[in-house]
Amino acid sequence: MPISDNVSKRMMEGSWIRRMFEEGANLRKRYGEEKVSDLSIGNPVMEPPPEFNQEFKKLMKKPMPGMHRYMENAGYAETRAAVAVQLSHETGIKFTVNDIVMTCGAAGGLNVVLKTILNPGDEVIVFAPYFMEFGNYIDNHGGVIRVLPANEQFIPKLEALEAAVTAKTKGVIINSPNNPTGVVYSQDFVRQLGELLRRKEAQYGTQLFLISDEAYRKIIYDGLTYPPVFHHYRHSIVVASHSKDLALPGERIGYIAIHPDCSQRDELVGGFVFCNRVLGFVNAPALMQHLVRNLQHVTVSIADYQKKRDFLYGNLVNMGYSVVKPQGAFYMFPKSPLEDDVTFVNELRQWNVLVVPGRGFGMPGYFRISYCVDDRTLKVSLTGFKKAAQKFKLC
Amino acid sequence: MPISDNVSKRMMEGSWIRRMFEEGANLRKRYGEEKVSDLSIGNPVMEPPPEFNQEFKKLMKKPMPGMHRYMENAGYAETRAAVAVQLSHETGIKFTVNDIVMTCGAAGGLNVVLKTILNPGDEVIVFAPYFMEFGNYIDNHGGVIRVLPANEQFIPKLEALEAAVTAKTKGVIINSPNNPTGVVYSQDFVRQLGELLRRKEAQYGTQLFLISDEAYRKIIYDGLTYPPVFHHYRHSIVVASHSKDLALPGERIGYIAIHPDCSQRDELVGGFVFCNRVLGFVNAPALMQHLVRNLQHVTVSIADYQKKRDFLYGNLVNMGYSVVKPQGAFYMFPKSPLEDDVTFVNELRQWNVLVVPGRGFGMPGYFRISYCVDDRTLKVSLTGFKKAAQKFKLC
Repeated sequence: MPISDNVSKRMMEGSWIRRMFEEGANLRKRYGEEKVSDLSIGNPVMEPPPEFNQEFKKLMKKPMPGMHRYMENAGYAETRAAVAVQLSHETGIKFTVNDIVMTCGAAGGLNVVLKTILNPGDEVIVFAPYFMEFGNYIDNHGGVIRVLPANEQFIPKLEALEAAVTAKTKGVIINSPNNPTGVVYSQDFVRQLGELLRRKEAQYGTQLFLISDEAYRKIIYDGLTYPPVFHHYRHSIVVASHSKDLALPGERIGYIAIHPDCSQRDELVGGFVFCNRVLGFVNAPALMQHLVRNLQHVTVSIADYQKKRDFLYGNLVNMGYSVVKPQGAFYMFPKSPLEDDVTFVNELRQWNVLVVPGRGFGMPGYFRISYCVDDRTLKVSLTGFKKAAQKFKLC
Repeated sequence: MPISDNVSKRMMEGSWIRRMFEEGANLRKRYGEEKVSDLSIGNPVMEPPPEFNQEFKKLMKKPMPGMHRYMENAGYAETRAAVAVQLSHETGIKFTVNDIVMTCGAAGGLNVVLKTILNPGDEVIVFAPYFMEFGNYIDNHGGVIRVLPANEQFIPKLEALEAAVTAKTKGVIINSPNNPTGVVYSQDFVRQLGELLRRKEAQYGTQLFLISDEAYRKIIYDGLTYPPVFHHYRHSIVVASHSKDLALPGERIGYIAIHPDCSQRDELVGGFVFCNRVLGFVNAPALMQHLVRNLQHVTVSIADYQKKRDFLYGNLVNMGYSVVKPQGAFYMFPKSPLEDDVTFVNELRQWNVLVVPGRGFGMPGYFRISYCVDDRTLKVSLTGFKKAAQKFKLC
């Protein structure tokens, strides 16, 4: 076998999301675009907001000399400063350029953070259901994933965390608004989480990192305000991305932000910058750094997403599906009417509706719907969901 | 220490290139832009060629719906097809989309290849002087670097390779045109290398990969033609980049190309695609993929680079420096007049000329000049080189 044993093993486990994405392409070819409801991948159909195109035109009208050249591995100081201003505004905490490293999306950012902090065998805790790539990212850098349960509302069980943290624990990854559930963690939850981690740090004399994957932070509904982890825990590292809030997933632009008061912040940021370089990212794409600089306060239309959520949630509940109402991101994670989520997902595929089985997120018995699609596709999908509901006697 | 022991250790070793880059920024601040000759980093001062801007304007005039979205992790089929056409044209071997994976530059591509093929403890051979990041890339994925010598003309010593390959050897990295020497390996050399590797494969019953870092392939002088590794060895993987040939280093766009007849090509390409995803690159930046599609045959002005080479080489030789004449890339690797290259580099810095000590490439006693700067900077640097030459009695 020419491929490393570990890569080979992990490839076999595969990615359900990408598998369904490819299946979707096949179905579309066979039945035609308009016949297939591909709700499998979080690849927003929305175009970037108009402000993005305005920035683009401005830049093209007056290109800066050297705008495609290397810059510091941390990214342009001007872009990092703009992110710092936005985070200061959101949190009331004073961020500076020194707290920010621009990255190739959140996926790049997470790899950079994990490589920086993990010694071989260090444990990183996640809560199911979870974005399965976390497992690959942790494994890339010699870490060991520990998966803990969430409750029925998909909120991580803190008593499980209490029991699981040991001297070998290096960090906890949370993701709110959550992929795949759309759940947003409350201020109270984040506060309790911070208290627990502080207590464990004191107990073991370790530094425990709270790594908050905030790829969906700005996609949040019902007038909710997002409770910043920075308010409740000093050893917090936020990894964010403009893939979803500016609809630029293919462009690979995001950032790492560390709490300004994190102990040994400078060493950590130095590590991030080093790892950004040696992992081969080198720097976040230059042009996108120029563009997102003035767009830190801009998002795609959240109202449009909320409308889609309302439409789909309302219809599914009416059909008898059991769904926790999402308050952010663009995912829904209903209970599968069949215990075997793969069988149910295959059933939906008979109706040209593509979703991802819950086991693709470490939680069999559920399935994930990605509703960042156009309204027509959502509407068409209802027939499939309805037929399946009837077949399995939900209604 | 919050940072992993290994990252911490590797950070201490540091990157001479980046250290001098930062030193350059300091000196410029202190003495003014025009007083400092920063010849430390390969960050081309040239803007992308006019064809790049034309493509850009065309795209902006007629933006494609969904042009910033995710695509296959391997990259757009259209872009991969364009790379395949160009490689087929250059080599006379028939490449297809299935042989190409778009990457975040050559640095990203090398990490993807190494993660795909390396089991813990596998050895990868490089030849000094070499781009020191190779050591970090190999280490990222559990490999062990073995550094072998080159001859006085900076051509790898094949007898050393003959002796060094064992059953633990997984690959050999070569880099021609070479960073830091500018040397281009001859057809004869590549042929002999291919023969040696085939013989060793037969001897050990292993698959040995020739990984050819061709970031500078198109920057080649004196009417030379580039001898493709693909002509001489079937288990060849080329990693290329548009950082230098299109002057886009900050944009992170490049590719991996595998020999169409490589055994288990499909498994390997599947591994590259998987590793591109899980290392957090996900895909090469979408917009740049659209832009380089029609620019595969385009380069910056090679004549301009050759003129710079001639100017600098002629002057240095006249001053008494001992230099192997580079035939490609935009680097020169003269012998340091002092045995201690760091002392000599510090001496040059007294004259506001910044270069990188040879030990930054695993070869003390030399220094690297990067001449991808404007003519004025090169001219100003001559004073420093002259003063140093006089002080150390070269002339």
